[in-house]
Amino acid sequence: MSYVRCLRGLGSGQEYSSDVPMNLDPVDGRPVEMVIDVERLARERPALSWYRPQRRDMWRFGALLALDIDDPRDAAHIVSLGEGATPLLDYSDDASVRGTGVRLQLKDEGRAHAGYGANPTGSFKDRGMAMVASQARRLGLRRLSVPTQGNAGDSLVRYALASDLSVVVAMPPDTPLPILGSVAAAALRHPDRVGLDLAGPTIREAGAYLKQHYLPQGYFSVATFQEPGWRIEGKKTLGLELAEPAPGDTRWSVPDAVIYPTGGGTGVLGMWKAWDELEALGVIDARRPRMYCVQSDVTPPLVDAWAQGAADTTPATGGATLATGLNVPGGVGHARVLQIVRASGGAAVAVDEAEIAHETRRLWQTRHDWIGTEGAACFAALPKLLADGLLRAGERVVVVNTGSVEKYLPAVRHLL
Amino acid sequence: MSYVRCLRGLGSGQEYSSDVPMNLDPVDGRPVEMVIDVERLARERPALSWYRPQRRDMWRFGALLALDIDDPRDAAHIVSLGEGATPLLDYSDDASVRGTGVRLQLKDEGRAHAGYGANPTGSFKDRGMAMVASQARRLGLRRLSVPTQGNAGDSLVRYALASDLSVVVAMPPDTPLPILGSVAAAALRHPDRVGLDLAGPTIREAGAYLKQHYLPQGYFSVATFQEPGWRIEGKKTLGLELAEPAPGDTRWSVPDAVIYPTGGGTGVLGMWKAWDELEALGVIDARRPRMYCVQSDVTPPLVDAWAQGAADTTPATGGATLATGLNVPGGVGHARVLQIVRASGGAAVAVDEAEIAHETRRLWQTRHDWIGTEGAACFAALPKLLADGLLRAGERVVVVNTGSVEKYLPAVRHLL
Repeated sequence: MSYVRCLRGLGSGQEYSSDVPMNLDPVDGRPVEMVIDVERLARERPALSWYRPQRRDMWRFGALLALDIDDPRDAAHIVSLGEGATPLLDYSDDASVRGTGVRLQLKDEGRAHAGYGANPTGSFKDRGMAMVASQARRLGLRRLSVPTQGNAGDSLVRYALASDLSVVVAMPPDTPLPILGSVAAAALRHPDRVGLDLAGPTIREAGAYLKQHYLPQGYFSVATFQEPGWRIEGKKTLGLELAEPAPGDTRWSVPDAVIYPTGGGTGVLGMWKAWDELEALGVIDARRPRMYCVQSDVTPPLVDAWAQGAADTTPATGGATLATGLNVPGGVGHARVLQIVRASGGAAVAVDEAEIAHETRRLWQTRHDWIGTEGAACFAALPKLLADGLLRAGERVVVVNTGSVEKYLPAVRHLL
Repeated sequence: MSYVRCLRGLGSGQEYSSDVPMNLDPVDGRPVEMVIDVERLARERPALSWYRPQRRDMWRFGALLALDIDDPRDAAHIVSLGEGATPLLDYSDDASVRGTGVRLQLKDEGRAHAGYGANPTGSFKDRGMAMVASQARRLGLRRLSVPTQGNAGDSLVRYALASDLSVVVAMPPDTPLPILGSVAAAALRHPDRVGLDLAGPTIREAGAYLKQHYLPQGYFSVATFQEPGWRIEGKKTLGLELAEPAPGDTRWSVPDAVIYPTGGGTGVLGMWKAWDELEALGVIDARRPRMYCVQSDVTPPLVDAWAQGAADTTPATGGATLATGLNVPGGVGHARVLQIVRASGGAAVAVDEAEIAHETRRLWQTRHDWIGTEGAACFAALPKLLADGLLRAGERVVVVNTGSVEKYLPAVRHLL
């Protein structure tokens, strides 16, 4: 059985059973996270004996995850579609860093292809939703709901249909058509299992709609940070992968810097948790990547709060950004994101829409990776980070491309 | 009021009222077409006085169309979204014809942009569906249904919502996701006006599904050739545009050859009808373009029938082709298509899937026009047509790109 000890409030420190469904911490309305008993894991499964590098999916981290695929009792709950183990591509020759000596790598969460080494729906949401579906099944929850700007809904539906769950997805009417079509096709083919409602104009109203119409019917909300802690646990595998030994090497090590397009911030919390656990296991040392959170300047709550030294973001109105995944005006996890950015020695950086458009276009035209607008936003941040001396020659710097631009076609066609 | 005199069976010659809804010709199960009284038009509206070149949509052909936008009684029924007047692009420098002296032009029906000179849903289907919606309103029909491989459904929904019609669309489950998403979004936002059902595996089963479930409820079928004759009348504008004077010229003239990706063949019938009417009006002479109908060799009923000298196609099983619009194993209009191809001195030509894929990729990578797989199939036919001496130096040759590849993304991403 897994080494999950409990759930714990990120703000309150209060502990809760991980076997009872809950949403936010009732003490302070903050997220909770799953606590892995790393001391017991280190004692009972020494010397990385939990690690299954031969598996080409995220479950190869075995008992370090909240469900251990090597344990038949856990494996019975796990819904896996090959998520994770995504490519880490050498981008050192990209024009954005050429001549700087920075070793740029792209963690490409958007690459969808048959077989191993890809997220099944072409976005990083699959890591979280694989864990969500698996944990829901462990607790006997059968009906889930999620508001989404697109990818999270597409992903949850895929995992629900691959198992025995029912879901209702609410998305804004301007959700990109390939994503809407994917969920709509599932809803039309499986009307008893998949519901789709348009509610907007933003994910906030979509969430309110679900709260009014579906949660009273017994649907369990797996909106960001409501799950509880499950999506962090799935995204944790992104941090684990960034620390894995390079091919031919045996040494685990984190990058010097991670440039991450940040909306709600689940990925930031997940990666940081990964590295804390690896350190507790003695796999890596106390060094951490500097975390550079990138936002669009039309919706920059983290950038504003970071600049002001605030402990939390001030919820604002969302703006219209090409990087729709970044259009998160406020979030219950933002206080923790700010703690992490500060602890890491990083920063929160805004880029403007013209820069995002320019980089989306440039990357489309010069690369064969279908880098999404959120990933492009990170490239747009590189000149400023380099000019400010925040990235240095010889450093390993990872840009995370959270999803494929193909899912935004034809909405971004005018850029390409 | 327009100059439509009646409907007439293409096979039987039997005439029917154009004011009473009907589907196929009851005499022989063949399509009917709308008969324009060109003699009266020539007499009452001499010297092109029906022509409104300043309008940047297909309605600029005024009283030569089945509804005359200059007549308030007709205009009250017309639903227009700027369809038609698509670009005719010079492709003489394309690698496919370089050095041959052929003046290659691309009629780009897939170019969708704001403003004039584009089909609103990015495919040639908009010409037909604008006429369908308008004629349905003229006859007081309020509920329409269509089986579709995608674009026709997307188009009909757009025109229905732009007016006061209700529609039900049935499409195969493998319809490309951007199209499915577009229709699904409409269905979710206007559940009282738009219905969407998945039925397949092909458009044939989708049609049968509608026949069983919706036609008995009073839905009027506007499936290809069932409308009656309306889609031919809309597609007629494609032929009219190909004959219009070039900028700075006043002389109407048809191309020497037209290379057309042919599924059901409505466009072939429509273009031919256009030129017959222009000739009857004295606008052009008796010369016609040689019509080269291109099909995929996995579903080549017209190519087979043409090679065998048959009067009609033999319905066969559909195959899996990238050019999904060409996957039409048989059709009630095929006998007429074969007559036209023969009368024109043209041919029906098959290309293989590897050639379609290669040209889709080549055109994507070398051009900024989003040429669909059906358009790419025409380019794939060029080497054979040139090698066989069927296209000659100095000739004006038009390839029709019926829709944008963007609507097939991400289904064709692996090619690009």
